[in-house]
Amino acid sequence: MIIVLKKGAREKEIQEITERLSEKGFKVHLSQGVEKTIIGAVGDRSRLKELDLEALSWVEKVVPILAPYKLVSREFHPTDTVIKIGQHEIGGSQVHVMAGPCSVESRSQILETAHAVKAAGATFLRGGAFKPRTSPYAFQGLGEEGLKLLAEAREETGLAVVTEVVDVRDVELVASYTDILQIGARNMQNFNLLKEVAKTDKPIMLKRGPSATLEEWMLAAEYILDGGNTQVMFCERGIRTFENYTRNTLDLSMVPALHSLSHLPVIVDPSHGTGRWELVAPMAKAALAAGADGLIIEVHPQPEKALSDGKQSLTLPNFQKMMTELSQIANVLGRPLKGGEQ
Amino acid sequence: MIIVLKKGAREKEIQEITERLSEKGFKVHLSQGVEKTIIGAVGDRSRLKELDLEALSWVEKVVPILAPYKLVSREFHPTDTVIKIGQHEIGGSQVHVMAGPCSVESRSQILETAHAVKAAGATFLRGGAFKPRTSPYAFQGLGEEGLKLLAEAREETGLAVVTEVVDVRDVELVASYTDILQIGARNMQNFNLLKEVAKTDKPIMLKRGPSATLEEWMLAAEYILDGGNTQVMFCERGIRTFENYTRNTLDLSMVPALHSLSHLPVIVDPSHGTGRWELVAPMAKAALAAGADGLIIEVHPQPEKALSDGKQSLTLPNFQKMMTELSQIANVLGRPLKGGEQ
Amino acid sequence: MIIVLKKGAREKEIQEITERLSEKGFKVHLSQGVEKTIIGAVGDRSRLKELDLEALSWVEKVVPILAPYKLVSREFHPTDTVIKIGQHEIGGSQVHVMAGPCSVESRSQILETAHAVKAAGATFLRGGAFKPRTSPYAFQGLGEEGLKLLAEAREETGLAVVTEVVDVRDVELVASYTDILQIGARNMQNFNLLKEVAKTDKPIMLKRGPSATLEEWMLAAEYILDGGNTQVMFCERGIRTFENYTRNTLDLSMVPALHSLSHLPVIVDPSHGTGRWELVAPMAKAALAAGADGLIIEVHPQPEKALSDGKQSLTLPNFQKMMTELSQIANVLGRPLKGGEQ
Amino acid sequence: MIIVLKKGAREKEIQEITERLSEKGFKVHLSQGVEKTIIGAVGDRSRLKELDLEALSWVEKVVPILAPYKLVSREFHPTDTVIKIGQHEIGGSQVHVMAGPCSVESRSQILETAHAVKAAGATFLRGGAFKPRTSPYAFQGLGEEGLKLLAEAREETGLAVVTEVVDVRDVELVASYTDILQIGARNMQNFNLLKEVAKTDKPIMLKRGPSATLEEWMLAAEYILDGGNTQVMFCERGIRTFENYTRNTLDLSMVPALHSLSHLPVIVDPSHGTGRWELVAPMAKAALAAGADGLIIEVHPQPEKALSDGKQSLTLPNFQKMMTELSQIANVLGRPLKGGEQ
Repeated sequence: MIIVLKKGAREKEIQEITERLSEKGFKVHLSQGVEKTIIGAVGDRSRLKELDLEALSWVEKVVPILAPYKLVSREFHPTDTVIKIGQHEIGGSQVHVMAGPCSVESRSQILETAHAVKAAGATFLRGGAFKPRTSPYAFQGLGEEGLKLLAEAREETGLAVVTEVVDVRDVELVASYTDILQIGARNMQNFNLLKEVAKTDKPIMLKRGPSATLEEWMLAAEYILDGGNTQVMFCERGIRTFENYTRNTLDLSMVPALHSLSHLPVIVDPSHGTGRWELVAPMAKAALAAGADGLIIEVHPQPEKALSDGKQSLTLPNFQKMMTELSQIANVLGRPLKGGEQ
Repeated sequence: MIIVLKKGAREKEIQEITERLSEKGFKVHLSQGVEKTIIGAVGDRSRLKELDLEALSWVEKVVPILAPYKLVSREFHPTDTVIKIGQHEIGGSQVHVMAGPCSVESRSQILETAHAVKAAGATFLRGGAFKPRTSPYAFQGLGEEGLKLLAEAREETGLAVVTEVVDVRDVELVASYTDILQIGARNMQNFNLLKEVAKTDKPIMLKRGPSATLEEWMLAAEYILDGGNTQVMFCERGIRTFENYTRNTLDLSMVPALHSLSHLPVIVDPSHGTGRWELVAPMAKAALAAGADGLIIEVHPQPEKALSDGKQSLTLPNFQKMMTELSQIANVLGRPLKGGEQ
Repeated sequence: MIIVLKKGAREKEIQEITERLSEKGFKVHLSQGVEKTIIGAVGDRSRLKELDLEALSWVEKVVPILAPYKLVSREFHPTDTVIKIGQHEIGGSQVHVMAGPCSVESRSQILETAHAVKAAGATFLRGGAFKPRTSPYAFQGLGEEGLKLLAEAREETGLAVVTEVVDVRDVELVASYTDILQIGARNMQNFNLLKEVAKTDKPIMLKRGPSATLEEWMLAAEYILDGGNTQVMFCERGIRTFENYTRNTLDLSMVPALHSLSHLPVIVDPSHGTGRWELVAPMAKAALAAGADGLIIEVHPQPEKALSDGKQSLTLPNFQKMMTELSQIANVLGRPLKGGEQ
Repeated sequence: MIIVLKKGAREKEIQEITERLSEKGFKVHLSQGVEKTIIGAVGDRSRLKELDLEALSWVEKVVPILAPYKLVSREFHPTDTVIKIGQHEIGGSQVHVMAGPCSVESRSQILETAHAVKAAGATFLRGGAFKPRTSPYAFQGLGEEGLKLLAEAREETGLAVVTEVVDVRDVELVASYTDILQIGARNMQNFNLLKEVAKTDKPIMLKRGPSATLEEWMLAAEYILDGGNTQVMFCERGIRTFENYTRNTLDLSMVPALHSLSHLPVIVDPSHGTGRWELVAPMAKAALAAGADGLIIEVHPQPEKALSDGKQSLTLPNFQKMMTELSQIANVLGRPLKGGEQ
């Protein structure tokens, strides 16, 4: 930690800081330039939180040197985390496509979609049973009935299931049906929910909050690892910017950035990331080329009749077409699509 | 609702839309320009959600005409909502200052602060017992113990209490101690939490999410009103932008914008809105001048020893100084500070 | 400057950096923590630019300690700059209101407006002769004819004139007519234009770029001061954010922030800052309360017939009404409106 | 154009609007719902700019239906524009890589780089002679001397040249040396510069402004086409967001979005788009997969000694390695690298 003092800081003020740091066990080094005095402090990062030096009027700024996260960091865990789900591995040599509707709407809808995406090479079925919706007047999901339909579709097709949990009181219920627990973008900093899912033995897909920085996102994952669950994958789904032609701005640079800073796998969601179905296939290809470990894609048999997100859903034929293109790129990258091998 | 079709949309495609709209009871008007065909549709807004016309490939865009919210709208409820809490009224002719530490840390800290802010003219005591923190390693609050200390401070000083609830399971507990339930910025779209607080008889202070649009914020309030609790006040606390000299960008234009669109009171939090104590007083004055119904301010007896947010907390003397300045402005605006009268 | 090395940086690599710093005359201090090596470097800030240490693969980050600007800094120039224009002083004990139409459209329009805003207490007349417009098909201004009309209005009313220059080739021409040269938001980083206006003897109003950070804005001003013209005032006019209810997000926290970091005056433009005339008066009042040295306001005799920005222009009666309210607030703040005294 | 009136608009007010529209030759249709009156207006889009209906107090909002641009639109020009430069075609079946240093610094630097990038498969040499720099104290480029060195490098290697022009007074000079005139991000809305380059016969690379929306960007291109120069290519280089791990947020969704809305080619700059050399190769691959017609990449023989942007520059060996990977992806996409064939 570096503490920069304001011009004209007095001896007594400098001393107060160095003493306070020493008390907490920090090794302190003082550097007095012509214009500014700078204090370097080296010590146990877990004690940093007890100091709030920026509140001192003679402190200009405090620059942290060490990252505030630890368990998610590649420095701490140099080899890639590979998450095993049944016969699948996420973060390994193969790439996975998770596909399905935004919301589970009916038995026929979810089964038709499941069979079609399986045939096209997907390995996971996505679908929402509990839907967080901006408006109280929008369709809120089928609840447990939706979870049962997802389980039935898994039974029929062999696809694994990923679905979102939005309420701390539902964690156990949703975990009993799904293979991956999804934390939605709006809940990325719902810390109590993070603590609850950390207690399950299910892998977690942690979506990025629409205005979350890379560091905040990694700290949210840190909550889950710190809570005892190390099976976490990130999911980039776009951030909120001034550009509103797209629903969000899909920030693909997070894929190599996360791979460099963390050992956890990274999935990309080009459906929410763009909000326009015609941009999904190009951005899915781009995500693979950027190094994504998987994709999660909205697919609907009749997007124009979907109860949510129809505008960004692929039709079944468009999904199939995209999978063929993705497969070629995945092969040249040396990371074949898992479902494409069958 | 206006539906704009892509250039070259065919007769059959136009017909499909008009039929679907008619089925749902919409009155349809067709307007064929030289370049584009436009369909106007007038009808029951509650049925709009069942249509997802943008998913049709020949639709260019759908432009909603009516606002998606209703209960929070001034069109629906032209007179100002005034929230009564004990002898106080929020949204009426007087302005309130809510003050206190970010976190309740100890009995002496909260009591000392409470007495001081009361003496300076505050009418509400703020203080967090359950703290949502970005890092799992940061101080997470005293929990129920903190609530008890707030209640004790109320007993001693006569200040009303405002504190945050972060977990659906704690709503009843927190409501039993506080006078206002605060929904924090990160939980603005935690819809299940909104539904739970809607069931209580406590007024709700709904902070704006760091990346929430005005419309999303009003829809979040709509959840609470739709759930049966009409005692809602908004709290502007800054949005996330590219500017990082300040912690957030305090968007004071929301004060007159909300007063124009909604009947609910608007509070401003210049502490989180700026993240720097030296900017708090000028922005508090600005908030009053913009028409705010109240302010919520972080105050700490020793900011440099605070377990959270010390950098943005006022000392007790600085708070007192600010209150004097605020009082002058409040008087000239014709809305005196409530606590200032005593 | 603090250089943080990546974990595992080797002796030879550390040495390369320390040597390079020493060569440039920096005093170097090495601090080896358990996890990271940190190098502190103190020296002549003007030589910093010759080093690009972040390009070294073993450097994690470089943290500058000194601000990159100097002439605009309050550290360098502790007393407020007061800009004298005729009998007016900007940045002194009085507050100025600059008012007029977005564009000069006709002789009658500008004269009618000038007389009305003068009568209401404005001291400066604003009006664009050269208009930068997003679309090539929009009205681009009257050019020199517009400048002549502004000069005529000054002659008639005694108002001083502020108008924008957009092209390096027009600087001399515009300077020969105006009292303040305005650099528009889109030209804040048009560095050659900044260098040209620096050569004139006219005060400069430097609007903030829609995505400019505080530091970039101060550096743009630094270009002008470095070029020899010290008569610079900042003008906050809103930044681009995700919120699109307002045209921009007016960032009033910049007023106290600039006053703390710089000695130059700060003007606020609530017309562009909100884009909605009904929000202009509340935000103008808020700007004064935040400490602004002046306001620039769009006023039009018939906003609904304006060739540009009608939506954000006040009518003449609305302007007059606002001035009365502003005057009361200015008085209680101890900084009366200059034009209000007459 | 759709005009939505406020609730309670009176007959007389409605009439005023319909008359004004009729005067301008618009065909008007009135639609009175239970809650709102809506006016549809169809007519010549070039006359829209003369109306500023949102300034009327009884108008709630005006929704434009037609895009404000025309010449850049694919609706107006369905087939792809292919720009011919010597033997090269941009926007055709091949993909181009433009490479070189941020700034031309010396004869040996530019020649060494030119030979190396040519050998690796680049077809264009990039390099700045006139540099717009945030700080007045940073290296500002070699000026005409830099242009001469670029021309010499072209002579020696056969690479075509792309370089930036920042001043209206330099357009002729720069055009006499370069093959493509680059408009930098900060000048995207320097409309007079756009008008000047429109008069040359050189192709223009129009970089996206850091806070420019897709529509504003297309309108900036419209200025150039409207000025008579149809040889325009877009260049996505990242936008400014709250995320500051990367220098900008590279918005690759603009590649398919522009290809859908416009006929002009799209280049991607992953160097400025990320600001970190280690992210350049993954994002370059992603850009190709998203459908980019070319890439522009910063390469420097000794990035750690570069006078600008060393942190985001590839070394020559890293550039070569990236080109091999790009070539494989380009081939599988059916759009081979142009320089790779030799």
